[in-house]
Amino acid sequence: MNKYFDICATTPIDKDVLNFINKSNQSIFGNPSSIHEFGQKSRTIVEKSRIKIANAINCLASEVIFTANGSISNNMALMGCLKKGDHLITSSYEHPAILKVCDYLNENQIEVSLVKPDQNGKINTESVQAQIKDNTKMISIMYVNNEIGTINPIEKISEIAKRSNILMHTDAVQAMGKIHVDVKSMGIDLLSLSGHKFYGPKGVGVLFVKEGTLIKPILFGGGQELDLFPGTENIINIGAIGEAAKICMETIKSYSSEIKKLEEYFINLIEDSQISYKINGKGRVPGVINITLSNTNAQAFIINLDRSGYAISAGSACASGSIKGSQTLREIGLKNDAMKSSYRISFGKYHTKDDVKNLFNEIMKHTCKN
Amino acid sequence: MNKYFDICATTPIDKDVLNFINKSNQSIFGNPSSIHEFGQKSRTIVEKSRIKIANAINCLASEVIFTANGSISNNMALMGCLKKGDHLITSSYEHPAILKVCDYLNENQIEVSLVKPDQNGKINTESVQAQIKDNTKMISIMYVNNEIGTINPIEKISEIAKRSNILMHTDAVQAMGKIHVDVKSMGIDLLSLSGHKFYGPKGVGVLFVKEGTLIKPILFGGGQELDLFPGTENIINIGAIGEAAKICMETIKSYSSEIKKLEEYFINLIEDSQISYKINGKGRVPGVINITLSNTNAQAFIINLDRSGYAISAGSACASGSIKGSQTLREIGLKNDAMKSSYRISFGKYHTKDDVKNLFNEIMKHTCKN
Repeated sequence: MNKYFDICATTPIDKDVLNFINKSNQSIFGNPSSIHEFGQKSRTIVEKSRIKIANAINCLASEVIFTANGSISNNMALMGCLKKGDHLITSSYEHPAILKVCDYLNENQIEVSLVKPDQNGKINTESVQAQIKDNTKMISIMYVNNEIGTINPIEKISEIAKRSNILMHTDAVQAMGKIHVDVKSMGIDLLSLSGHKFYGPKGVGVLFVKEGTLIKPILFGGGQELDLFPGTENIINIGAIGEAAKICMETIKSYSSEIKKLEEYFINLIEDSQISYKINGKGRVPGVINITLSNTNAQAFIINLDRSGYAISAGSACASGSIKGSQTLREIGLKNDAMKSSYRISFGKYHTKDDVKNLFNEIMKHTCKN
Repeated sequence: MNKYFDICATTPIDKDVLNFINKSNQSIFGNPSSIHEFGQKSRTIVEKSRIKIANAINCLASEVIFTANGSISNNMALMGCLKKGDHLITSSYEHPAILKVCDYLNENQIEVSLVKPDQNGKINTESVQAQIKDNTKMISIMYVNNEIGTINPIEKISEIAKRSNILMHTDAVQAMGKIHVDVKSMGIDLLSLSGHKFYGPKGVGVLFVKEGTLIKPILFGGGQELDLFPGTENIINIGAIGEAAKICMETIKSYSSEIKKLEEYFINLIEDSQISYKINGKGRVPGVINITLSNTNAQAFIINLDRSGYAISAGSACASGSIKGSQTLREIGLKNDAMKSSYRISFGKYHTKDDVKNLFNEIMKHTCKN
């Protein structure tokens, strides 16, 4: 029985990826910078993985930079491309790995404009357009919001960016593994990914940097990853994120339609139960449901579920310890009361209908009817 | 038969650490920031590992910051503690993850003075003392040089630093796993470690930051690792580096004395062979031998050994692709000819006398007698 419904916080590792990790850990350990065979075996893993990522997101292998995680990819994209006097447009409900970087940029004479999402939880192209100034150097809008799962119109925002010769970055950490990610059709210059959000391991990320994009290193060392990310390559996790991307590309179509069915099944169960509920956000990726259950209190509710072994979330994992509540829910206009009784439930490719039914039954135990 | 003699470039993973990785990967995957049980199981791994590191290097658990690798720990120490107008003293034979950061610091109005090692490959305390100025904020000297294995007098340099209220950092990446590392007896404020240099995995490092040290984040995100290193924690590798540190602490005394014997055995074999040789550097860690074999050419020599499956190095792994040759050997005064026929051979805890004898025999095949 699978009781883990917090796929947005992190996914379990795909079984084939795990096999790759176990097998590789037994036989490969050289430093990819070494010219001897031990080193070159490791180098091969890294370069094969680069090709797998490139195939999965439709770019050149030379455009794939391996990093330690999605947050650091975001740091590199923003801090590496922007300089004093530049202007950045981003949204007010980005991940802290964008918003906290913005604070740093502000302190360093880089202007930042925050676009608010609409009530449906989306960034409108018009709102972005309205912020463009002469010194706008970059637009960075997340592809899929991490708390409510809404999909932003990156393709259209990219068009606006291109028209004004502005760099376009997207934090696609919550998109990969849930919907197809194609950097060409999106028309973007930079994109961030995180392995552990699409059934790969933690501790590895990707920054896609389109050929010709001027990006400066923000970390310095032995020249690894085109001088952008220093340190001996995490060969096992790098190999694993490539495997995860390959599996994702090959299977996402079928498993995401299954997840969509599970979501519909769950919402129908809730609907039929006559409890008071509201789904936050429209136009969402399959399987991410941010739901307000008015007659509950988040802390007690989640602890009760946890006691029975069920894992859901009151927001993003990174904000779990925060007393301010969800940044995203506030930005889309929820009042304090609604925020305090809202939950993120996320389904993944290993869930079954029975799992969803069990979760629903458990929720019912801790929810009052109207 | 073990033919890998490049322990300084990277170590194989200890068998018990590997068991830990395999076991944990099967059962643990939660996001440590999540408050539910899946998350808290991961949190426990991270915090237990922090205690293991603290025990191994003699500090408080709260002084241990997990990072992606030793290079990034170095970046964080220097960039996080220094600001415009400050002065840094470091050495001219540091790892690129220090020297390349220095270029960046220079560009940002932070003064850098480089102290040269002496002919034995050591940094003299007097040379450091001579560079101290009113605005000197930090001294950063590597504990063990990565190419010749010489041990620097960190304890004495720390005393100088303390007297002038200067922060003391040491890159101990090549020390841990070869000699005992004790931050208290060294009297330092910051120290960098890398998992894969002491039989742990790649993709995880440590920055020790003494309580009360003012350090600013250089990367921004979800608040992980006291806000210093963002991104979902690489729980498996973090757990593994703790295991590696524990094993290192428990066994280093016995295995390093064995390695010292292997080194003596090897040098005796070379001595008796009547080939022309010179060991570079005096006062070295056990098992790291930088040797000039006058009648060889590095590139051909290493390729010949590699063809027979033997791995040694012509310098640091990070500098393998460099056409400039070894920075360390140049700094200690080697001429170009000697640099081109110098090799780093490093022994580890899994080597036997037979392995060393086999390596010696192979070397003899490709070396002319005088």
